[in-house]
Amino acid sequence: MQDLIDLNADLGEGFSRWTLTDDEALLSVVTSANVACGFHAGDPSVMRRVCDLAAARGVRIGAQVSYRDLAGFGRRAMDVPADELAAEVAYQIGALRVFAEAAGAEVAYVKPHGALYNRTVHDAEQAGAVVAGVRLAGGSLPMLGLPGSRLLAAAADAGLTPVPEAFADRAYTPRGTLVPRSEPDAVVCDEDAVVRRSVAFAVERAVDTVDGTRVTVAARSLCLHGDTPGAARLAVRVRHALEEAGVKVGAFA
Amino acid sequence: MQDLIDLNADLGEGFSRWTLTDDEALLSVVTSANVACGFHAGDPSVMRRVCDLAAARGVRIGAQVSYRDLAGFGRRAMDVPADELAAEVAYQIGALRVFAEAAGAEVAYVKPHGALYNRTVHDAEQAGAVVAGVRLAGGSLPMLGLPGSRLLAAAADAGLTPVPEAFADRAYTPRGTLVPRSEPDAVVCDEDAVVRRSVAFAVERAVDTVDGTRVTVAARSLCLHGDTPGAARLAVRVRHALEEAGVKVGAFA
Amino acid sequence: MQDLIDLNADLGEGFSRWTLTDDEALLSVVTSANVACGFHAGDPSVMRRVCDLAAARGVRIGAQVSYRDLAGFGRRAMDVPADELAAEVAYQIGALRVFAEAAGAEVAYVKPHGALYNRTVHDAEQAGAVVAGVRLAGGSLPMLGLPGSRLLAAAADAGLTPVPEAFADRAYTPRGTLVPRSEPDAVVCDEDAVVRRSVAFAVERAVDTVDGTRVTVAARSLCLHGDTPGAARLAVRVRHALEEAGVKVGAFA
Amino acid sequence: MQDLIDLNADLGEGFSRWTLTDDEALLSVVTSANVACGFHAGDPSVMRRVCDLAAARGVRIGAQVSYRDLAGFGRRAMDVPADELAAEVAYQIGALRVFAEAAGAEVAYVKPHGALYNRTVHDAEQAGAVVAGVRLAGGSLPMLGLPGSRLLAAAADAGLTPVPEAFADRAYTPRGTLVPRSEPDAVVCDEDAVVRRSVAFAVERAVDTVDGTRVTVAARSLCLHGDTPGAARLAVRVRHALEEAGVKVGAFA
Repeated sequence: MQDLIDLNADLGEGFSRWTLTDDEALLSVVTSANVACGFHAGDPSVMRRVCDLAAARGVRIGAQVSYRDLAGFGRRAMDVPADELAAEVAYQIGALRVFAEAAGAEVAYVKPHGALYNRTVHDAEQAGAVVAGVRLAGGSLPMLGLPGSRLLAAAADAGLTPVPEAFADRAYTPRGTLVPRSEPDAVVCDEDAVVRRSVAFAVERAVDTVDGTRVTVAARSLCLHGDTPGAARLAVRVRHALEEAGVKVGAFA
Repeated sequence: MQDLIDLNADLGEGFSRWTLTDDEALLSVVTSANVACGFHAGDPSVMRRVCDLAAARGVRIGAQVSYRDLAGFGRRAMDVPADELAAEVAYQIGALRVFAEAAGAEVAYVKPHGALYNRTVHDAEQAGAVVAGVRLAGGSLPMLGLPGSRLLAAAADAGLTPVPEAFADRAYTPRGTLVPRSEPDAVVCDEDAVVRRSVAFAVERAVDTVDGTRVTVAARSLCLHGDTPGAARLAVRVRHALEEAGVKVGAFA
Repeated sequence: MQDLIDLNADLGEGFSRWTLTDDEALLSVVTSANVACGFHAGDPSVMRRVCDLAAARGVRIGAQVSYRDLAGFGRRAMDVPADELAAEVAYQIGALRVFAEAAGAEVAYVKPHGALYNRTVHDAEQAGAVVAGVRLAGGSLPMLGLPGSRLLAAAADAGLTPVPEAFADRAYTPRGTLVPRSEPDAVVCDEDAVVRRSVAFAVERAVDTVDGTRVTVAARSLCLHGDTPGAARLAVRVRHALEEAGVKVGAFA
Repeated sequence: MQDLIDLNADLGEGFSRWTLTDDEALLSVVTSANVACGFHAGDPSVMRRVCDLAAARGVRIGAQVSYRDLAGFGRRAMDVPADELAAEVAYQIGALRVFAEAAGAEVAYVKPHGALYNRTVHDAEQAGAVVAGVRLAGGSLPMLGLPGSRLLAAAADAGLTPVPEAFADRAYTPRGTLVPRSEPDAVVCDEDAVVRRSVAFAVERAVDTVDGTRVTVAARSLCLHGDTPGAARLAVRVRHALEEAGVKVGAFA
C-alpha cells in the first residue's frame, strides 16, 4: 500500500460567458487542479479566479496545456511542428504562472489536455516538444500523464519528475492500458464501481480489467472528471472512500 | 541636457506566416524592444525568436500589451471592463516573461499598444486597469507612455516608474501634445526633420511645434517606428545623429 | 390592438463544447430565432444544428451579428471603422445563410448582438455600417432593433424594413427608452409582471414606466431572453398569456 | 493538345495589418483566384477587396477553404470530425459568397488550402467531409485538386466536377505524384524550367520526372504560387509562354 494518493481534475474550463466545470465544488475535493490556460478553454479572468480559489484552499495548481484549438476544445489532434508546439506550451505555462503567483501559489506541474494528452501517449516527437516547452518555461515541473506513455518517458529523460495517473471511470485492458473510447465498455458509468476502483488504485495499485483479470497500475494520482453532471458529488464520494480505507489524500510530492 | 536617451520600437509584430517589423535590423539600433505578446500580433514562436535576438544584443525587453483584437491589430478601442483588462494585461506579461527568461533576460517594462495606448491617455479607468494588470503580474515594472497621460499618472500613483516618451516623427501642439492623426500635418515625413527632432528631444528636451513655437517635452525615451519601409535605415540615422551630438544612447534606468 | 406579435430570442449561443441557450425548448415557443454567427458565439456545427431545428419547427431565422469578440461574448463595444464593420457584418450573414438554406429556410432578418446593439442605438456611424453590411450581403433584410434607435433609422433610410422590438423584462422610462442596466430597477424579475407586460405591449402597444405613468411602445416583436434559468418556461407562459388575450403570435410580416 | 488551360493562384492571404500575396499583380495574370476565407488568412475586408478586384478583371473566384488555424496558417493537419469539418467548409464558402456576389460575381469552385489539401489527397474521410461541406453550401461547385487524390474521387462520387491541377514548380515522380517537400529536389527553382514545364503540362499533358522519364499529367489548371518574391513576374512569364505556344489561357469550363 502506498502512503499517498493525489486527486486531480480539469478546472477553469469556462471561457467568456460560458462555464463548464464546477470549480468551487471540485476545489473542495481535489488536491491538484489542472487549470486551463486559454488555448482550449480558460480566459484570463477565469484563470485568475480559479487560481485564487485554488490557492485559498491549498489546492496545488498545474498547467493544463493544450493545442491552440478553442473551437474544438483542444480535442482535435494537430500536426504542430515541434518548435511551435514547445513555444505554445511555454506560452501557456507563463500566462498561468502570473495568476498562480498573484494568488501566492505557483504552477507546480503540467498536464496536457485532450488530444495533446492522447497524442503524446504514442507520439515521441510531440511528447518531446511538450517536455521542451516545460523546460523552456524554466524550472523542472513534474509531468502528469499516462503510465507507459511517451510523454512520461520524455519527461524522465529530461530530468522532469513523471507522475503516472489512473482513471477510475475508464476500463483497463489486461496490459494496463485504457480501453479506447471507441469501444462500447470504455467508460465505467456505475458510480459504486468508480468509487471501488479508486480505492483499488490507491491501496492495491491495481485494477480489474475488462477480461476479469487484475493488472498493476502504478498511479500516484487519480484523475476525476469535472465536466459531467454529478461530477462534484462523485468526487466527494471517492475522497471519502479513500480516507475511510486509510489512504492519505494529498498532492504528490 | 540629459545624460541618457532610450530608443524604443515595436518589434515581433509578425504572426503565423506574416511578418511586419524588421526585427533583426531594428535590434541593432534600439535599446528597448516593445515585444508583441500575442493579442494583436506575435505568436509564441515569434515571441521566442525576438526575445532570443534581443537578449543576444543586450536590448531590453518590454511587454507591448494590447486589446485582444488580432483581426484589428489592436487598433480598435474596446470597452473592456477593468477587471477583465487587468487580467488580460497580466496574461500577456506572463506569457512574454517565459521567453525573456529563457533567453537569459527579463521583461523589464510595459508599453500598451495601439488603441490601448491611445485610450489610456485620457481614460482613467482603463489606465488604472493596465496598471492593475502590471501589479498583478508581480514586480513593479516601469511604464512607457505619453507625458501627461492618465496611464503614466496611474503608474506613478501605484508606485511604478513612469517613463515618458517622445515621437520624432509626429507633430506637436504648443501644449506639448501630439497633433491628432486625423489632421493633415500629424506625421513628419521628412527624414532629415525626424533626425533633427530626435536630437532636439534628447539634447534640449524640447521640440518645434506646428505653430513655430518651441515646447518642452520631458522624454526619457524616443519611439522609433519599425513597420514602415526604410524604418531600420532611419533608425540608424537617428542613433548616429544622437551619438554625434554627444548624447548617450541607452536603456532608461 | 395589433393583429400580430412576433416573439424573438437569441439562440445558438453555444460554442465548441459550451452551451448556453436551451435552443430546443425555446424553438417551440418563439417565432423568430436570432442565431449567433460565430463572432461572439456559435461555431459552424452549432449554427447548422440550430438552423435545422428552426426550419423543422417553422421558426424564422435571423442573423444575430456581433463584434468580433469571442472572449468578451460581444459585450465589449469596439471602435471598428465603418468599412471593416460592414464587411464583418456581411461575412456573418453569408456564413449563416449557408446553414439556413441547407435547412430549406433563409436568413430573414438581422439583429445586432450585445454591445453592437447598444452602440447602434446612438452611434450613427456604426448604425450605418451595420446597415451597409446588410446591403452588402444582398437582398433587403428587415432589421430588428430598439424603437427610436439610430439603427432602425439607418435601416429605414436604406430601404430596409425596421422592426421595433420591446423587452418585457426591462423597465422603461417615461420617454419610452430602457432604464440603463446600471440602475437598480433596470430588470423586471417578477415573472408575473413579465407576462403582464408582454400582453400590454402586444394588446395596448404600451407599458407602465418606472414613475407609474404609461408610455406607448410601438413594438412588432417581443424579445425573450433565453440564457437565464427558467427562460424557456417563462417564454411558454408569455406565449400562452398572449394567445389567451387573443393576440396572434407569429413572425413579423 | 488541349484547348484550354486555367491558371490558379492563392490570393487574399493577408489578415489584419498583414499582407502576403501581391493580389493586384496576380489578378492580372491568373484566370482563377483561390480566395482565403478567414480560417487560415483573409479577414472580411481583405475578402471583399479581393473579390472586387477579381470581379473587375473577370477572374473567377474560388473558395480556398482551410482548417481553422490562423496561428498556423492552415499548415497543421487537424483531426477534425467529419461533421465539424463539413460545417466549417460550408461556413467559409457562405462567407465568401457574400463578397463574390456583392462584386457581381459568384463563388465558382472550391480548393482546400495547405494541410487540408495535403490531407485529403489520402484521407478519404476528410475528403468526404470537404465534399459534404460543398454540398451543404448548395449548388455543385467544381473541386480543384491533385489528380488521383481522394478529394477528387469523392467530388466525382458526389456529382461535383473534379478539376485536376498541376504544379509547374514541383518535381514529379515517375508515377505522376509530387516529390514530397521533405526531399531535396522537391521544388523546381529555376524559372526557365518552370516556364518550360508549364507549357509541357498544357500542350503535352505531360512532364519530365525526377528520373528523366516522362509522365502523363492530366491537368486542367496550373497552380502558380503567389507568396514568393518574384511570383507575379514569373506568373507573367508563364502566361506569355503559354500564349506563344498557342495555348488558350482561360478559366476551366
